Amino acid sequence: MGKIKCEVSYDGTNFSGFQIQPKKRTVHGELEKALLKIHKGEHVRIHPSGRTDTGVHAKGQTIHFETPFQIPLDNWKRALNTLLPGDLYVNTVEAVPESFHARYDVIEKEYRYYVWNEKEMDVFKRNYAYQFQYPLDISVMQEACRYLEGTHDFTTFSSAKATTKGSKVRTLYQASCEKRGSEIEFIFRGSGFLYNMVRIIVGAMLDVGQGRRNPLDIAKLLEKKDRRLLGETVPPQGLYLWKVTYKS
Amino acid sequence: MGKIKCEVSYDGTNFSGFQIQPKKRTVHGELEKALLKIHKGEHVRIHPSGRTDTGVHAKGQTIHFETPFQIPLDNWKRALNTLLPGDLYVNTVEAVPESFHARYDVIEKEYRYYVWNEKEMDVFKRNYAYQFQYPLDISVMQEACRYLEGTHDFTTFSSAKATTKGSKVRTLYQASCEKRGSEIEFIFRGSGFLYNMVRIIVGAMLDVGQGRRNPLDIAKLLEKKDRRLLGETVPPQGLYLWKVTYKS
Repeated sequence: MGKIKCEVSYDGTNFSGFQIQPKKRTVHGELEKALLKIHKGEHVRIHPSGRTDTGVHAKGQTIHFETPFQIPLDNWKRALNTLLPGDLYVNTVEAVPESFHARYDVIEKEYRYYVWNEKEMDVFKRNYAYQFQYPLDISVMQEACRYLEGTHDFTTFSSAKATTKGSKVRTLYQASCEKRGSEIEFIFRGSGFLYNMVRIIVGAMLDVGQGRRNPLDIAKLLEKKDRRLLGETVPPQGLYLWKVTYKS
Repeated sequence: MGKIKCEVSYDGTNFSGFQIQPKKRTVHGELEKALLKIHKGEHVRIHPSGRTDTGVHAKGQTIHFETPFQIPLDNWKRALNTLLPGDLYVNTVEAVPESFHARYDVIEKEYRYYVWNEKEMDVFKRNYAYQFQYPLDISVMQEACRYLEGTHDFTTFSSAKATTKGSKVRTLYQASCEKRGSEIEFIFRGSGFLYNMVRIIVGAMLDVGQGRRNPLDIAKLLEKKDRRLLGETVPPQGLYLWKVTYKS
C-alpha cells in the first residue's frame, strides 16, 4: 500500500477537459483507465491539483493516487506511459507520504498563456496559442501586470460562473509578460487562482496593449471588486498549467 | 477568366494526405470544396506542385486553378480562408499567366524534417516532429549530408513503392542538418525529389548519427543505385514541404 504522486503533461486539444464525464474523453478518465488496467480491473481514484478546462494544456499537472501494489517507480512510469494515449504523458513518478494530497498541499501554481501576435494565421499555432492580429504595446501591458502582483481580492478577475463561495483573496508572486518575435508569453505564479482568472487577466491585458484601457485601470478595477466589470476571457488553447509546487 | 496561384500551409495531422480520395478528408478535397462554394456549385480543379502523404505538413505548398471570376486578389484570399478549415490556410494569392503550371514549372523545392532528440516524450511535439530518444552525433550527420549535395542518381534513396519510371537523377542544392537544443532541423533543397526520398535520407542519417554507419557509407550507397539497400523511412509527422520556387 502506498501513495504515488505523478507529474503529467497533456495536449488539451482532444480532451473534453480534465474532469471525468460520462462518454467524454477526459484527462481524468484516461488516467483512471490506465490505472484500472494496471490494477487488473480494480478501480483506483486519482486526485489532481485542480481541473483544467477543455482545450487547456498542461506541462506539469500533478495528481496522486493510492495503490496496493509495490512496484519500482521507474516501472510505474513505464507502465502508465505504455497504456496512456499519445497526448497524455507521465513526466515523473514519486512515492509520497500517506498525508500528501495533490490538491490541498499545493503552495504555488504557475500558469502560462501564449499569444501569437501576427496578422497572418499560423496553422501550427491554432491549438497552442491565441492568435491575435492587432498591434500590442508590450510595455504598457508589463506595467499593468505589475499592479496585479501581491495579495489582492481578485473578485473583478473571477468568472461569473465561479462556484467558489470562499475568499477571493489570492497572492500573485509573479504576473509578467514578454514578447519574443511574434510570441507573447504571460507568466503567472500564485498561491492559487480563481476560476478563469488567468484568461480574464490576459483579456484585460490585451485591452491595455491595444490602448483601450490604461495600465492604471487595472489597479482601479482590482479595488472595485466587481466581477461584472470584466469577464471577457481569452480562448483556452493559449493556456498552460505549467507547474504545481508543494511544500517539500 | 484567369489563372490563380496560391501558396497554402497546412497542418497534416488530420488530413489523409493531399490527394483527393472519396470519403476521406484531404487537402485537395478541402480546397476544391471551398472553390465549389465560391463558384456557386461549379467545380474548379486545383493543381498542386505535388502531393504530400498523410501526416506530412506544408508551410508553403503551391497550387493553381482557373476561374471565370474577376475578383481582387485580397478578396480571393479572404474568401478562401473564410471557407477553409482551421488547419488549412492560404498564405498568398497571385494572378499568373495562362502558361503557368504549379507542377511543371517548379524549379526548386525545399523540404525540412524535424527530429526531437530527447529521452522524454513531449506531448506537444508528437504530431510535429519525430521523437528520437537515442544520442546522435550531429557532426558525422553533417558530413554525411554533404555527400548527397550535387547531381546524383538517387535510386538507393527512393521508395520501393515509387511509381516513377523515369530518371532517378536529381540535384540537391542543399542537404544539411543543425542541432538547436533538443531539435534537429534537416534542410533539403533540390530540383525535385523522388517518392519518400527525404524520409529515407533522414533514416540513413539517423543510422550515421548513432554510429551504425559511417558517413562515407552514404557516398558508397549512392553509387550502388540499389533501392533495397535502404528504404526504412522515418515517420511522416516530422516532414514539412517548406517552399516551392518557380522561375519568375
